[in-house]
Amino acid sequence: MYYTDKKLQFPVRVEKPNPVFARALQQAIGGVEGEIRVCLQYFFQAWGARGPAKYRDMLLSTATEELGHIEMLATAVALNLENAPLSVQEDVSNDAIGGSVLNGMNMRHILSTGLAALPENCNGVPFNASHVYASGNMAADMMANVTAESSGRVLAVRLYNMTDDPGMKEMLSFLIARDTMHQQQWLAAIEDMGGLSASLPIPNSFPQEKEYQDMSYTFINTFVEGLAPAEGRWSEGKSLDGKADF
Amino acid sequence: MYYTDKKLQFPVRVEKPNPVFARALQQAIGGVEGEIRVCLQYFFQAWGARGPAKYRDMLLSTATEELGHIEMLATAVALNLENAPLSVQEDVSNDAIGGSVLNGMNMRHILSTGLAALPENCNGVPFNASHVYASGNMAADMMANVTAESSGRVLAVRLYNMTDDPGMKEMLSFLIARDTMHQQQWLAAIEDMGGLSASLPIPNSFPQEKEYQDMSYTFINTFVEGLAPAEGRWSEGKSLDGKADF
Amino acid sequence: MYYTDKKLQFPVRVEKPNPVFARALQQAIGGVEGEIRVCLQYFFQAWGARGPAKYRDMLLSTATEELGHIEMLATAVALNLENAPLSVQEDVSNDAIGGSVLNGMNMRHILSTGLAALPENCNGVPFNASHVYASGNMAADMMANVTAESSGRVLAVRLYNMTDDPGMKEMLSFLIARDTMHQQQWLAAIEDMGGLSASLPIPNSFPQEKEYQDMSYTFINTFVEGLAPAEGRWSEGKSLDGKADF
Amino acid sequence: MYYTDKKLQFPVRVEKPNPVFARALQQAIGGVEGEIRVCLQYFFQAWGARGPAKYRDMLLSTATEELGHIEMLATAVALNLENAPLSVQEDVSNDAIGGSVLNGMNMRHILSTGLAALPENCNGVPFNASHVYASGNMAADMMANVTAESSGRVLAVRLYNMTDDPGMKEMLSFLIARDTMHQQQWLAAIEDMGGLSASLPIPNSFPQEKEYQDMSYTFINTFVEGLAPAEGRWSEGKSLDGKADF
Amino acid sequence: MYYTDKKLQFPVRVEKPNPVFARALQQAIGGVEGEIRVCLQYFFQAWGARGPAKYRDMLLSTATEELGHIEMLATAVALNLENAPLSVQEDVSNDAIGGSVLNGMNMRHILSTGLAALPENCNGVPFNASHVYASGNMAADMMANVTAESSGRVLAVRLYNMTDDPGMKEMLSFLIARDTMHQQQWLAAIEDMGGLSASLPIPNSFPQEKEYQDMSYTFINTFVEGLAPAEGRWSEGKSLDGKADF
Amino acid sequence: MYYTDKKLQFPVRVEKPNPVFARALQQAIGGVEGEIRVCLQYFFQAWGARGPAKYRDMLLSTATEELGHIEMLATAVALNLENAPLSVQEDVSNDAIGGSVLNGMNMRHILSTGLAALPENCNGVPFNASHVYASGNMAADMMANVTAESSGRVLAVRLYNMTDDPGMKEMLSFLIARDTMHQQQWLAAIEDMGGLSASLPIPNSFPQEKEYQDMSYTFINTFVEGLAPAEGRWSEGKSLDGKADF
Ligand SMILES: [Ca+2]
Ligand SMILES: [Ca+2]
Ligand SMILES: [Ca+2]
Ligand SMILES: [Ca+2]
Ligand SMILES: [Ca+2]
Ligand SMILES: [Ca+2]
Repeated sequence: MYYTDKKLQFPVRVEKPNPVFARALQQAIGGVEGEIRVCLQYFFQAWGARGPAKYRDMLLSTATEELGHIEMLATAVALNLENAPLSVQEDVSNDAIGGSVLNGMNMRHILSTGLAALPENCNGVPFNASHVYASGNMAADMMANVTAESSGRVLAVRLYNMTDDPGMKEMLSFLIARDTMHQQQWLAAIEDMGGLSASLPIPNSFPQEKEYQDMSYTFINTFVEGLAPAEGRWSEGKSLDGKADF
Repeated sequence: MYYTDKKLQFPVRVEKPNPVFARALQQAIGGVEGEIRVCLQYFFQAWGARGPAKYRDMLLSTATEELGHIEMLATAVALNLENAPLSVQEDVSNDAIGGSVLNGMNMRHILSTGLAALPENCNGVPFNASHVYASGNMAADMMANVTAESSGRVLAVRLYNMTDDPGMKEMLSFLIARDTMHQQQWLAAIEDMGGLSASLPIPNSFPQEKEYQDMSYTFINTFVEGLAPAEGRWSEGKSLDGKADF
Repeated sequence: MYYTDKKLQFPVRVEKPNPVFARALQQAIGGVEGEIRVCLQYFFQAWGARGPAKYRDMLLSTATEELGHIEMLATAVALNLENAPLSVQEDVSNDAIGGSVLNGMNMRHILSTGLAALPENCNGVPFNASHVYASGNMAADMMANVTAESSGRVLAVRLYNMTDDPGMKEMLSFLIARDTMHQQQWLAAIEDMGGLSASLPIPNSFPQEKEYQDMSYTFINTFVEGLAPAEGRWSEGKSLDGKADF
Repeated sequence: MYYTDKKLQFPVRVEKPNPVFARALQQAIGGVEGEIRVCLQYFFQAWGARGPAKYRDMLLSTATEELGHIEMLATAVALNLENAPLSVQEDVSNDAIGGSVLNGMNMRHILSTGLAALPENCNGVPFNASHVYASGNMAADMMANVTAESSGRVLAVRLYNMTDDPGMKEMLSFLIARDTMHQQQWLAAIEDMGGLSASLPIPNSFPQEKEYQDMSYTFINTFVEGLAPAEGRWSEGKSLDGKADF
Repeated sequence: MYYTDKKLQFPVRVEKPNPVFARALQQAIGGVEGEIRVCLQYFFQAWGARGPAKYRDMLLSTATEELGHIEMLATAVALNLENAPLSVQEDVSNDAIGGSVLNGMNMRHILSTGLAALPENCNGVPFNASHVYASGNMAADMMANVTAESSGRVLAVRLYNMTDDPGMKEMLSFLIARDTMHQQQWLAAIEDMGGLSASLPIPNSFPQEKEYQDMSYTFINTFVEGLAPAEGRWSEGKSLDGKADF
Repeated sequence: MYYTDKKLQFPVRVEKPNPVFARALQQAIGGVEGEIRVCLQYFFQAWGARGPAKYRDMLLSTATEELGHIEMLATAVALNLENAPLSVQEDVSNDAIGGSVLNGMNMRHILSTGLAALPENCNGVPFNASHVYASGNMAADMMANVTAESSGRVLAVRLYNMTDDPGMKEMLSFLIARDTMHQQQWLAAIEDMGGLSASLPIPNSFPQEKEYQDMSYTFINTFVEGLAPAEGRWSEGKSLDGKADF
């Protein structure tokens, strides 16, 4: 069961509303790197968890936090849409800046929501829940979570660089910090379960003698005859689970 | 900002796990009539609300409750998947009942989640957030919410009739009761704003003299020549906003 | 079986073609608030109707009318695309207005249709038939239809305000008038079946004594401890079906 | 503008309702080879047509006919759902046939429509309007239409072979005949425009001297060294537009 | 099994990067008329082919070539994104051209890929594999392939006309030439199987006496009473399979 | 540019065709954990790569290998569909086993492909290219790849356990071995770039002093008052990048 205190996790303010930036922020709400995705992903992992309670508790706690991030971003979108141009009348179109802004907007911000956020990405593609990964395998899920927070932080940094609004930079610096922690947190959970190399290969429940082992630690080159193979750490040295040489 | 007490809103128990009913329950999680939809819909309406705080508060409160309904249903799916057949081995296929159950399952319950719920409908179609209606017009949104709770309650009743598991019937009787209240609640909000007829036509902000008024209260029959028109309340009597006769 | 007279239901003309407005109009064709949706929704409700013929007839009649609305809007899109810029050549890009227009267009209007309409919304997201609600429960479906016409009319009004083309305003004033009537019409059907309060809770076929009745008329507050509940019509007075007090 | 006579184009009857066949029929309604697709495709081609009126008229006429095919199939689905098992109660599951039927159904036929058709395919995937091809190039569109009627007729024949219900066979024999004619019809339109070889390459408006002509009539083999090329009509003889040798 | 030589099939160069044209090019990658679609379509047709090896070989060969086309276009997108504006800072927005360019871009080119291509169309709609047609009927599939190459060539020609960059024109002239050949090639396969009229109606395996033959060669007019029918090649003369008169 | 030798990477054989297992295998083709996804993901990462050539080469080489895995699985699906029941005729429905098999199949294997594979998952949901992650940040992409191979290997192991066909077990033991190696390979690439802790936080290009650092290494508990926090490695000890204490 869930509760709210009707407050934002961190204050959201916008000095100069920018409807085009409102569109960009949508990627952090409904994009594949966004907050709806991590929120649902952590909830479904928690609700399906069958192992020790501490992992479930951690997932539940962070899922609930992510819901607050969607809330912050939805608020930021609405604030950036203040004073958005609402028409394509001739005088607006003749105004290079005004027309330009209208063209760069997500028109559904005008037509469908009356200047509020949508559960969509920056191109207006609705969030699709197939991006929620909850496999029932803890190690696989923790890797999926690190990945989600990595692509999420890459996105947040790009949004930070895209704006010069001090309020928006502040909000993003908070979200970026949380992404830093969340990357740590899911990696820490892997540590807690014995460390990455002990988890490998994921899932580690399958007896490796049943694999076609000739191919388990061999890099396969698919270049046409005569082309030198790609060389790197993956073709020389000990494997990362310590069980073989490449 | 959001919080959890790690408890279910209402106890969920399953006496005889039934993996086919687990599939059916998915419709109430990720179907267009389901709980993810109302949860996100009420949240986005709340986060975009610009009117009196009481409506926003009510939306926020109920959105948060709906999150707990997804949790209950996800728990119910997992419980129904206990002891599901995990293979298509010959002996299972030769067993009419066993094979039948496997065939009726959502295979992703085995292959993708390891016996847990998914944000999908009963056919495995992922929830798509385009079903979140938050128009910025309060009356339109309240109607959308009554609709969502109506289709939701129709679904919950059909699920109730589909199962004979006492635990599942109990859980559904609770969810059905909440749907009853939520229908009431959104209708009460319309009352609170002055009643439905005062809201009509939605949106009531557009000056009706700008409409092509000859066609505003006229039923149009598209039957080929010679066929009698469809007759009913819509073709006789006072209009429902009291402004005209049909 | 269906027939056409090869005419538009209402004349469509555009004085100054505007390719950006063509994009906006797409929301009324293929958006979730648009005409393809209501057209298919009323058809599928009609084709699945098992009750009195008059409801089926009415649904069939209006579904057929809506097909003519898609036709009007598709015509309007094509007319607005006349003289659209077809290139991103340097001289166009250097022209603030020309470049701006190209940027604001749906590029598929150039690349995929050769200046004609698409069954997509204003962001180029294809119409998805999961938005067709036809539940087999008449009251639920009528509410869904009022909702559809409410979001549809909100959209049409916003489009009306977005343009200053007299032809487009005229066409939209017609479509707005039809939305007014269609809201009336589905509400009238509910009247015809005995009125809304008699229909509540939807579906009214389920014996309410089987609900978990303690929770059927109670507003649940999910605010953290110490926060005052949201107060309004939904927490005081008689319920809207007259069966209880909140 | 469109009209209806409230009749089916061809009578639809079902001797022995079969809910699993109802699911199969959905492919012909909302599948990519189905009737919603051709209906919308021909309408959008007609509404966007800028050439001679006779092509537009033909498209409009057939689009309107296809609407009647959706109606026939939706009726057939509803008839096949009569007496469908509505529960997963233990006694049904213990009955190999009853349980089997439930497992093979589209559960939304029970849960979402109350035993009526949906705009979805046989797996419950909603129709997606991205399958509507209307390019503005008449030859390309006619080829797309022949393709649609070819995949449609392949589907209808497979459905015919799947059932032994005389009513269903009759209905399908009618739809198959119409697919035969529609294949003819779009090919005849190409004839009417001067024949296929005159249309090639599609579009024939682009000056072929601007192509990289060394590669316009050459089959490219991508087999690794030493493998013999695929040989056939495409690597020898005159090209099909008569302009070159392969 | 597949191999690469790490080279492009044809050189790709861009003289003046244009991020808006990068967006347009996406239609040729992930649009329904694009290269991912034909690549997967030919592969799935090949992998499912049960007839003579020569058709499978040809399909495999061309599918593999198409993969190289995606590669060329992805390279072209990346080159056009060089020097794209990465911010919506005030000074960019005040610059009509700079702001205009940003507004015309696919923002995911900045936010999600760091200036590289995506498997999406020009509006940012992800490629959806439902567009892969592989019916198991050779004639139907060959028609589908001609259609795909026709819509593909229409698109490539429109892109050619949209740009004035010599490098881009060169690349497109190559792709256009390949589309010319691929149209030929699939038509040649039909010749190879005995010619189109021998394939009609598709599928030709169904005994036509089982069709409702009264309707197999008759154009049906759905105009309301009194309107003259659409006249053309489809209503007079011999049918195209030579089996009947219209 | 790409080439083929017309051979499978590893032999595929099926002793007892099982159409229900054919459906299960579809998850490994077109599911979010499947081979189309990794194939396109590695290709788009390679085509957009701007760093050292060795990473691009490795990505290209493995992407090309994955194409061969789709081929193997498509072959396996076709072999499992041999002798599938093609009808719902009464005698099949009365046969518990036969009827059961039909009910458990993907009907499009009969209706749409004529017993061949589709680019869809086990529920018939088409592959959607939004699952292709190619962010332009090498560390984020490598994590995404480890994740993809982890969920892929979890799936392959579950498929292995689901079947008792020796041919299918053999094929899967090969694919499982390749997943083992691919997990290693992407982790090795991270090693090659300096190791995971050096990459953290991803992206490591953003100056951490611009983050809201109070929140960068702090686990946030969202339990309601009085509930003990979730304790684990994430709330005590050194952070995993060695820069702070939790
Ligand atoms: Ca977050
Ligand atoms: Ca609920
Ligand atoms: Ca309308
Ligand atoms: Ca038809
Ligand atoms: Ca090509
Ligand atoms: Ca693989």
